[in-house]
Amino acid sequence: MTAACAFCRIVAGATPAFVVLDEPEVMAFLDIRPLFPGHLLLVPKTHLETLPDVPSELVGPLFLTAQRLARAVESGLDAEGTFVAMNNRVSQSVPHLHVHVVPRKKKDGLKGFFWPRTSYASDEEAMAVRDKLMAALKNGA
Amino acid sequence: MTAACAFCRIVAGATPAFVVLDEPEVMAFLDIRPLFPGHLLLVPKTHLETLPDVPSELVGPLFLTAQRLARAVESGLDAEGTFVAMNNRVSQSVPHLHVHVVPRKKKDGLKGFFWPRTSYASDEEAMAVRDKLMAALKNGA
Repeated sequence: MTAACAFCRIVAGATPAFVVLDEPEVMAFLDIRPLFPGHLLLVPKTHLETLPDVPSELVGPLFLTAQRLARAVESGLDAEGTFVAMNNRVSQSVPHLHVHVVPRKKKDGLKGFFWPRTSYASDEEAMAVRDKLMAALKNGA
Repeated sequence: MTAACAFCRIVAGATPAFVVLDEPEVMAFLDIRPLFPGHLLLVPKTHLETLPDVPSELVGPLFLTAQRLARAVESGLDAEGTFVAMNNRVSQSVPHLHVHVVPRKKKDGLKGFFWPRTSYASDEEAMAVRDKLMAALKNGA
């Protein structure tokens, strides 16, 4: 626990939250500034900043819980689908890993601006990017 | 494999792709309409539509791979962070689960419009939503 961390304080019970799930390793609560009502934040109880920082033995339990929450949002809130996402470092409001689980409905207004796409100028440009990523994986990423 | 599925065709080698990672259960390749160069799509090789459909024994391997890709994007492409996300059903362009792993930099233009937030009108409204979700979890979600 980091006393200054907003989510560590929720985990510790020092800040109130609308908790939906409380288990030994993870907790989920309502985002109080939701994209849509029922927008959940799933956090590891230990202070871990980003996805790359999660110990490998916690990755399975964390995302099995995300999966359960996605199902709960669909069945409990009549959502037609979900958006499950995390911002690591950039656009990350609280530096304690949180997986957003957001109920979605068709025509709820998120589509469109959500994915401003670009493209590769050439196959060579794409291959150069691919090769950098493969090298990073080979180097132990 | 579903012959009509664009990602099953990539997994089968029937459609070319810039493949970054090819393992027994999962594959990752460049999104050819990236948010930013290096935007990856991670898919299970079997045809599974959404996160809730993934067999529990595959959840860990899938997200351990997402974690490796997030690290590779950071170290291989000098990203300052990553956006890791999946659209389940709504806004899902291809109905074969794909985890987006997107390199991010500060001031890359995504922040702002990315999270149009609302709020709960009252604590009672938030509690009613929380209770529905807890009931769904209790009912086996």
